[in-house]
Amino acid sequence: MKPRKWKTLATEAVYRTPIFDLHRRSSRHPSRGDRDFFVLEAPNWVNIIPLTPRNEVVMIRQYRHGIADFTLEIPGGMMDPEDRDPMSAARREMLEETGYDSSQIVEIGRVHPNPAILPNHCYLFAASGARRVQKQQLDTNEEAEVVLVPIAKIKPMIASGQIRHALVIVAFSFFDLYNPPRRPRSSRKKRE
Amino acid sequence: MKPRKWKTLATEAVYRTPIFDLHRRSSRHPSRGDRDFFVLEAPNWVNIIPLTPRNEVVMIRQYRHGIADFTLEIPGGMMDPEDRDPMSAARREMLEETGYDSSQIVEIGRVHPNPAILPNHCYLFAASGARRVQKQQLDTNEEAEVVLVPIAKIKPMIASGQIRHALVIVAFSFFDLYNPPRRPRSSRKKRE
Repeated sequence: MKPRKWKTLATEAVYRTPIFDLHRRSSRHPSRGDRDFFVLEAPNWVNIIPLTPRNEVVMIRQYRHGIADFTLEIPGGMMDPEDRDPMSAARREMLEETGYDSSQIVEIGRVHPNPAILPNHCYLFAASGARRVQKQQLDTNEEAEVVLVPIAKIKPMIASGQIRHALVIVAFSFFDLYNPPRRPRSSRKKRE
Repeated sequence: MKPRKWKTLATEAVYRTPIFDLHRRSSRHPSRGDRDFFVLEAPNWVNIIPLTPRNEVVMIRQYRHGIADFTLEIPGGMMDPEDRDPMSAARREMLEETGYDSSQIVEIGRVHPNPAILPNHCYLFAASGARRVQKQQLDTNEEAEVVLVPIAKIKPMIASGQIRHALVIVAFSFFDLYNPPRRPRSSRKKRE
């Protein structure tokens, strides 16, 4: 059976928060009639894998209110209205959250964080040659500890559950697609 | 700087929907004072990679209200109160959404869909030997088309953006970790 589109009849913001608005969307289907669906309107998100010249990932350990516990993540966040594009937003987040910077940034992928309830994209980036250029500049609600993790340790840490944020794991998954570990061991030399 | 925990002072459900409740959580930090954070209380989620004896992934094409468009996904959804455990929930979703079944299911990973705003986990499974045993049994809001995709095509489809749901990509990422493509081509024989 070919699924058909729903038509949006009306959308109402039923609750607003600083990071998303909850919308009730009344929709009509050619055979299923009228129904309400709930959607979280949010800006696009970005995250970025900053790699130092020694092939360490610049990660942050921070408290997350959803799970009421700490996570190990790469820098990322919401696009601000002032950000020129997703890449600028990712670079800003890297600089603010870790104090590291790099101008060598590539987009490695983009995903829907959850197409059932979120209209937005998360844009995924990788930066090479990241170096510490300043102190972290966190907002008043943020506290984060910078942790350097050798890139070779990332997969074991995902497998063991030490890295558990879906959008962080997705970024490393695209990093592999973009830069697959095809070279034989003997040719994998440390580059500065 | 070592980040410190926030203490929850009070939680209030400010809006309820059929798939999550929006909670406002008042929290206190030892140095940052009192702040409100918003969290989506939702059941745990599950998804599952059903593999046929011919190494095709049983996927579904369905309309998603968040993005108001169609996606290509593996079966999955929310755990129901009646589900004995996440694996039973994943098997139920596979059967309902695709009509395929298998008793050979393994958990390949678990992630936080978004630890900033969601307390829940998404449990990831893979099923081998999946066979069509019945018609799809979709609820009144669901419409989904079953699509069989050879497992070898999944990575190119992720790279090209044909598969864009973060939690689906995460499942395939864990499938690789669990079952890495290490065998040389000559030994990869079709198993029935």
